[in-house]
Amino acid sequence: MVTKTPVSPSNQQVMEVVFHPKSVAVFGASRDTKKESSSGWVGRLVHFGYKGKLYPINPGASEIMGLKAYPSIKAIPDEVDYAIVNLPREMVPGVVQDCVEKGVKVVHVYSAGFAETGTEEGKKLQDQVKKAITGSNTRLIGPNCIGVYCPSGGLTFSMDSSKEAGEIAFFTQTGTGGRQLVSRANARGLRFSKVVSYGNALDLGVEDFVEYSATDNETKVILLYVEGLKDGSRFFEAIRRATKVKPVIVLAAGLTESGAGAAASHTASLAGNQQVWRAFFEQTGAIQVEDFDEAIEQLVASLKIPKLTGNKVGLVGRGGGLGVITSDMCERNGLKVPRFTQEIQKILATLTAADSGSTITNPAEIGFGREGVSKTYAEGLRVVASDPQIDFVLTFLYPEMYVVEFGITNWVDGLVNAFLEVNKTMPKPMVVAFVQGQNADVFKDIGLAGEHLLRGGIACFPTIQAATKAVAKLVNYYRFIEANYE
Amino acid sequence: MVTKTPVSPSNQQVMEVVFHPKSVAVFGASRDTKKESSSGWVGRLVHFGYKGKLYPINPGASEIMGLKAYPSIKAIPDEVDYAIVNLPREMVPGVVQDCVEKGVKVVHVYSAGFAETGTEEGKKLQDQVKKAITGSNTRLIGPNCIGVYCPSGGLTFSMDSSKEAGEIAFFTQTGTGGRQLVSRANARGLRFSKVVSYGNALDLGVEDFVEYSATDNETKVILLYVEGLKDGSRFFEAIRRATKVKPVIVLAAGLTESGAGAAASHTASLAGNQQVWRAFFEQTGAIQVEDFDEAIEQLVASLKIPKLTGNKVGLVGRGGGLGVITSDMCERNGLKVPRFTQEIQKILATLTAADSGSTITNPAEIGFGREGVSKTYAEGLRVVASDPQIDFVLTFLYPEMYVVEFGITNWVDGLVNAFLEVNKTMPKPMVVAFVQGQNADVFKDIGLAGEHLLRGGIACFPTIQAATKAVAKLVNYYRFIEANYE
Repeated sequence: MVTKTPVSPSNQQVMEVVFHPKSVAVFGASRDTKKESSSGWVGRLVHFGYKGKLYPINPGASEIMGLKAYPSIKAIPDEVDYAIVNLPREMVPGVVQDCVEKGVKVVHVYSAGFAETGTEEGKKLQDQVKKAITGSNTRLIGPNCIGVYCPSGGLTFSMDSSKEAGEIAFFTQTGTGGRQLVSRANARGLRFSKVVSYGNALDLGVEDFVEYSATDNETKVILLYVEGLKDGSRFFEAIRRATKVKPVIVLAAGLTESGAGAAASHTASLAGNQQVWRAFFEQTGAIQVEDFDEAIEQLVASLKIPKLTGNKVGLVGRGGGLGVITSDMCERNGLKVPRFTQEIQKILATLTAADSGSTITNPAEIGFGREGVSKTYAEGLRVVASDPQIDFVLTFLYPEMYVVEFGITNWVDGLVNAFLEVNKTMPKPMVVAFVQGQNADVFKDIGLAGEHLLRGGIACFPTIQAATKAVAKLVNYYRFIEANYE
Repeated sequence: MVTKTPVSPSNQQVMEVVFHPKSVAVFGASRDTKKESSSGWVGRLVHFGYKGKLYPINPGASEIMGLKAYPSIKAIPDEVDYAIVNLPREMVPGVVQDCVEKGVKVVHVYSAGFAETGTEEGKKLQDQVKKAITGSNTRLIGPNCIGVYCPSGGLTFSMDSSKEAGEIAFFTQTGTGGRQLVSRANARGLRFSKVVSYGNALDLGVEDFVEYSATDNETKVILLYVEGLKDGSRFFEAIRRATKVKPVIVLAAGLTESGAGAAASHTASLAGNQQVWRAFFEQTGAIQVEDFDEAIEQLVASLKIPKLTGNKVGLVGRGGGLGVITSDMCERNGLKVPRFTQEIQKILATLTAADSGSTITNPAEIGFGREGVSKTYAEGLRVVASDPQIDFVLTFLYPEMYVVEFGITNWVDGLVNAFLEVNKTMPKPMVVAFVQGQNADVFKDIGLAGEHLLRGGIACFPTIQAATKAVAKLVNYYRFIEANYE
């Protein structure tokens, strides 16, 4: 039954199995159909619509969720591309050995309790797993991870992840955090091409995934959450090659002394070195983010803003104090807010009542209109974009003010339609930032408007701080590429 | 009719009139009762429950909202403490002159269109107003501002502000931003003692308000939004005296080149100098914030966290990746996350399943419980607080996970009660940070829980970033006070 190929498969070949396996075996499938259907790996794949062959393994069952069950991997008569191991940790080395003998191409060990515990027993078990695959062509994801989410391959680690494929590749050392990021990004309207939570990275690690996704046509932006690296120089080279062709966003966690201590307990990773990481970011052009919120905003910017190397922003939005704060925020994050030309100011003066306190120098304060975005507002965006000094337009909106003060509650459609319409003829990128107050209905509507705008191709952010930070980092990325490769 | 007092009133006397006038006259009250009731200054004061004498002024009306109306200020038979001017700008110099002659103690000019427009006409009108009060005992707030909100005095600039008085004094050069901040802070459960939007600061300015509130017993924390100063050295001294006795939070806007341009158009303020402001913050101990979001969080920290000079935090919360990110965030913001003592770790190990991947070194990962906060969780908070190295406890919670994954929707009461209960016997300050996802119901519940916790005396923040930043800044403030005055 041993079916070793004479030559080790290439990383490309391994990744094709990781994301599009033709057959999947599941160790630890439950005889309790209700339980398996709601929280098991077989249930997950069935409900997600996995199209390949699915083999539940359970010595005590003949059928699970209508599928024939097998007592062991070796009892399966056909070839198995991919196996998911959900068993007590003590059983893992043995079944991984069985997978190797069966010629399974990729094994995902979901089970935890290995090196990450810091215990002798955990480390010993992880060594045994490692020994089982050493010298074979069987590759391994994990242990201590939730594995793969790939809509086009029919794989998922979560029942509620979108079945729609997108253009984000995301590789994460944390499972819970990774799943939560996918869930939140999905809710914002973002979609993923390939996601892997790889846990302890006993075998396959972030280096392998980045090398693959740099040339993957289904991926336009790469996001990584890393706590440690197995091979720093290979990682560095992989990122350098990737950033040449697409933005790479990196959340490197455990960089501070406090964080390093936490990382050691979490995935048994060695402390990161802040100086080394600083050099890494400077030399690769990778975009650094510091938490999951920033990661999501950077995804939005990277996917929805076309190549932008200029940092001069034209601001449009009401509220003098908010305009001053926004201008400071722009500059603190690396953007510039130049005074509009006399000609542009003249045109803006015809759109706004400049003598009653409205600013037209940048920011431009233009009435939103009590029925939603007015024609004047849309025209103002276009006028500001036509200033030759301006590289892009940022408009900031505070819907709670309109809802609470003017009683406007149905603003979403009008705003979305007006912005999508004006964006068709905007000569420069347009970015939308919302200010969120405390009102839950407004929170919901901002989410709805944001999702529509995003799907219509407009970058949209939940705070002004998030917008200015994310755009400034994107500009720095394109400047790095221009300076180094063009 | 001229009733000049021989000696100029002290700042204290002026402020008593500003916040607790015995009588108020309103220029520009509307004959249309419906309009006046919904958006006029008389309507506002009537609905807010102002207890003093109220004199609407309108030459074309005999009665407004059931109150006798007067054709002019001079026609009012009694003394008038305070007048609100809501008239076309051209009329303002004349009525201010009338107020001076009538002996009105404080005039609030709501009308805009003065120096802030940058026009000759605007500047000329402002000069005329200034001339009218020069040499008199009449003091002026504005022009171009929404004036005073003081629940104990019955004054408000907004119909929806809370009638309940609190301990925050807030002085702001921006009216719209100021009103929005009050509205958002109210919704969080925060309450104010005295608020003034003072606009162009022709006469009374931030220096006067700070001097007063430093010794005001109704005020425990002071917040300022400033774009420019009339008297830098007086401001510096007033702040120094205030920070000795209570935290002072300052949002100085227009500090960058971009922001300074915007400030010039907004309130005609001169560009701030970043070096000067940096020295100001270093030498006064005032707490710098950069936007309204940070301002609100700093208010929460300042009011709800007792004096704290230690920066060592014990973290409790689920999610290994989130724990690592939080630890990094703590250290980046100036806090430390020390490893718990062996003794504490031993106790934590009995509360959590450390061998299945839960961290007990700091952060401590403890199960939240599917029915809300478990007894184990509460006990974990107490254990962490008992570590002799720890100065305070920060617990981070991600309710969306519980709602989406476990279907727990009624978590608010259980969590609030458990936290208020455990807080009674906590030997050290406890801080709560939420992680907000995209779910609007969860947003609403986080708001609700936050308000209950806050009113119960527990500092509570909408993000981990906000919590760590605000607490770190508060620690720095108390360290400054200790180093300089104790």
